[in-house]
Amino acid sequence: RTAEFMAGLTSEEISQVFQHTDPDNRSDILSYFDRQKQVEVVSELDRNEAAKLVELLQPDDRVDLLQEVEDDVREELIALMPAEVRRDILRLDQYPEDTAGAMMTTDVTKFSETMSVREAMDALTVQAEDFETIYYLYIVDDENHLRGLVSARQLLTGMRKPTQKLGELMQTDVVAAHVMDDQEEVANKVARMDLLAIPVVDLERRLVGLITHDDVIDVVREEATEDAHRIAAVEPLDQSYLRTSVLTLSWKRGIWLTILFVCALLTAFALEQYESRLKTLYWLVPFIPLIISSGGNSGSQSATLIITALSRKHISVSDWAKVVTRELVMGLLLGVGLATLGLLASWFMINTEPRVIAPEDQPAMEISVDGGETWIANEVGGEVQSRVKQETQSLTHLAFFVVPLTLVLVVMAGTLTGSVLPLIFEKIGLDPAMMSNPFVAGIIDILGIVIYMTVAAWLVGV
Amino acid sequence: RTAEFMAGLTSEEISQVFQHTDPDNRSDILSYFDRQKQVEVVSELDRNEAAKLVELLQPDDRVDLLQEVEDDVREELIALMPAEVRRDILRLDQYPEDTAGAMMTTDVTKFSETMSVREAMDALTVQAEDFETIYYLYIVDDENHLRGLVSARQLLTGMRKPTQKLGELMQTDVVAAHVMDDQEEVANKVARMDLLAIPVVDLERRLVGLITHDDVIDVVREEATEDAHRIAAVEPLDQSYLRTSVLTLSWKRGIWLTILFVCALLTAFALEQYESRLKTLYWLVPFIPLIISSGGNSGSQSATLIITALSRKHISVSDWAKVVTRELVMGLLLGVGLATLGLLASWFMINTEPRVIAPEDQPAMEISVDGGETWIANEVGGEVQSRVKQETQSLTHLAFFVVPLTLVLVVMAGTLTGSVLPLIFEKIGLDPAMMSNPFVAGIIDILGIVIYMTVAAWLVGV
Ligand SMILES: [Mg+2]
Ligand SMILES: [Mg+2]
Ligand SMILES: [Mg+2]
Ligand SMILES: [Mg+2]
Ligand SMILES: [Mg+2]
Ligand SMILES: [Mg+2]
Ligand SMILES: [Mg+2]
Ligand SMILES: [Mg+2]
Ligand SMILES: [Mg+2]
Ligand SMILES: [Mg+2]
Ligand SMILES: [Mg+2]
Ligand SMILES: [Mg+2]
Ligand SMILES: [Mg+2]
Repeated sequence: RTAEFMAGLTSEEISQVFQHTDPDNRSDILSYFDRQKQVEVVSELDRNEAAKLVELLQPDDRVDLLQEVEDDVREELIALMPAEVRRDILRLDQYPEDTAGAMMTTDVTKFSETMSVREAMDALTVQAEDFETIYYLYIVDDENHLRGLVSARQLLTGMRKPTQKLGELMQTDVVAAHVMDDQEEVANKVARMDLLAIPVVDLERRLVGLITHDDVIDVVREEATEDAHRIAAVEPLDQSYLRTSVLTLSWKRGIWLTILFVCALLTAFALEQYESRLKTLYWLVPFIPLIISSGGNSGSQSATLIITALSRKHISVSDWAKVVTRELVMGLLLGVGLATLGLLASWFMINTEPRVIAPEDQPAMEISVDGGETWIANEVGGEVQSRVKQETQSLTHLAFFVVPLTLVLVVMAGTLTGSVLPLIFEKIGLDPAMMSNPFVAGIIDILGIVIYMTVAAWLVGV
Repeated sequence: RTAEFMAGLTSEEISQVFQHTDPDNRSDILSYFDRQKQVEVVSELDRNEAAKLVELLQPDDRVDLLQEVEDDVREELIALMPAEVRRDILRLDQYPEDTAGAMMTTDVTKFSETMSVREAMDALTVQAEDFETIYYLYIVDDENHLRGLVSARQLLTGMRKPTQKLGELMQTDVVAAHVMDDQEEVANKVARMDLLAIPVVDLERRLVGLITHDDVIDVVREEATEDAHRIAAVEPLDQSYLRTSVLTLSWKRGIWLTILFVCALLTAFALEQYESRLKTLYWLVPFIPLIISSGGNSGSQSATLIITALSRKHISVSDWAKVVTRELVMGLLLGVGLATLGLLASWFMINTEPRVIAPEDQPAMEISVDGGETWIANEVGGEVQSRVKQETQSLTHLAFFVVPLTLVLVVMAGTLTGSVLPLIFEKIGLDPAMMSNPFVAGIIDILGIVIYMTVAAWLVGV
């Protein structure tokens, strides 16, 4: 509550309040703040004070915080800490970002198999305040290999027979994470098993750290945000929106915008190939954005559904046949739905525009409707007149179906591409969230144009 | 581990294995499965067996499971349960979806202020297995009002003086959720305070339930998936991808596709208004998708960044001035970047195409370059020839800048719309994730066309 109140203060005010607070409370308050505020407060304080404060944080939070303060401040602070803490910081620092090693705290209490339930209870009673977690007691052998686990619940129940050894009570099939595991996998494991904490072991199954539920929640949110950003073609940010500099942000957006731009350029080249067709049947032009965006939207819907389902393990690559079938059926349904609207639009937009089939540079035309047939007369007379008449007639028959039929095909192409690409990227080990969007967009844009022009040629002829 | 092994089995095989397992283990195994498997197994089992099994689940999981089995199975199962359990199910069932009430379990153990530390410890020792959480002891008065909380840690430390009353030891500033709080708020609170569990109270602060960390993780993932779906214009699913029927899914996608389609139709109408301009300067046409998609992509990047930052509380509506400034600067940077590429593309695509300025129906033209000036001669001779010459000249001067300048303006319009709309929706209390995408897309598509045509008219004249 104090912290909640203080969250409203500036970092200067906070450092003043801190001078009247005892060190333990200070670090409690500090750990409540978000990372940004922590960094501000620490940078604001006297170096000695700050070093003491940071030292009192949990090892994992300590490292995270130090990673974000200015380099020179960081050096000074680390220099002021006891050798043991310094070693610990450097050790945690060496694990690559987004691994269990970088996520864990080293502050894990270890128990031995030969300890009795009463002894363990007494140890907890004396030290409860200092332990990172008291909910699981991890049992290791002399060489620090993880042997088993006794939950606080089991320990309490075990108190009915206090002389029992922890070795007799412990579960030996402990779910553990490896230091180099991806944080996302760790979070999935914890979420699936409803764990409060997960021990982190090295290749020889030595217990090196612990990841607690609160850090798992943070990772779940971080990973979900990462996915959302990638789906929208933004390289994930390392920090929150406002903390990221405009230049970094522009870069993280720019690379993907550029890739998407190049895809769109290919679309422009594709469109250029159809120049004569589009000039003859100019009424096709206004529908171009409609067709491209319908394909793109249905594709991004499919891609997002598949990406989120993959990341939440609701589907796996082996479900591909089922997924693709479903998406094709949906593409058909959605396509037919949009096609109905498209037919109405075609009827309205093409029918009211007989001028679209007349050459622009012969402005002195007269349009007359005679017995259901549209006649266009202009100064050139005879020959041109009959040609125009024929075109008008063929238009009334099939032209209205160009946009609707294209929509069905393009939406199906969208759902197909949007579902197949993430599955392929997952299969070959690339992050489906990162790769799918530009590819789906690029493929659908070009495919949309090609389908549109082919359908037009087929139904109306050029 | 047993459960992990059994996850690979079919529900039929599982129900056979269950006949040789004792009831307590069965419900443990069942609670490890995902909801879908649970439903299958329960539907497979004999009704009496199933009822017993479901009864042993935690109250919140029980309700969630029952909500997903077939209606008739549900009725039968509830009828087979003891009156007390039945009442509890009906009570939890009455809270609206996505509230703390629907998320909580009613299985919360209450302690009184007058209890001593030793008594509490003894109670825990006897009953530890039955409690939903042993990490926090909630202290209530005679009328069930929440008075305070003693953590397991405090209790252990308190064992140094076992006659102490819980009332002396307890923290009174307990963070609690209200039954009708949105689950997202609850999850945010738990994540921010790093809680293991949060008590749920009614309007009179009576303790009615408890939400534990594992349910919070599930909600965090559910809400993040919901946001991702909404950003991609899919109505959030109630169930996992494969469990949702194709019809439901088509509907949830179809409504938004239709809205986006109508926006795209408006774009088509807008394009129609510029028909004569586009026919005269046909080379503008192939760039249409490029311009629209650049605006749309930068807009969706902005919208996604703002939406995720809002939902993670990294920004709030009051930061609008800062956010909008940043987005405009970024829009300018990104726009200029794309414009550079656009200039290259224009130079390449327009320069190599002198034919674009000649009327299509006069095919017998000859193009000659004379002293840096391009001359186009056709059968009509004299007058037309000089007109065409002039156009070619003006093109070489300003036409190359139409696409680049449009890109700068469109990308800036994209970042502006993409950042302002989510802030507005958040301000007026609508979910920014839900509302932003179709609006951003619709506005940018039309705006893109209008900007493009205006820039073209201004630079090249028509
Ligand atoms: Mg990261
Ligand atoms: Mg870390
Ligand atoms: Mg879970
Ligand atoms: Mg942490
Ligand atoms: Mg931690
Ligand atoms: Mg990921
Ligand atoms: Mg990741
Ligand atoms: Mg829900
Ligand atoms: Mg529930
Ligand atoms: Mg937290
Ligand atoms: Mg639960
Ligand atoms: Mg939400
Ligand atoms: Mg929600």
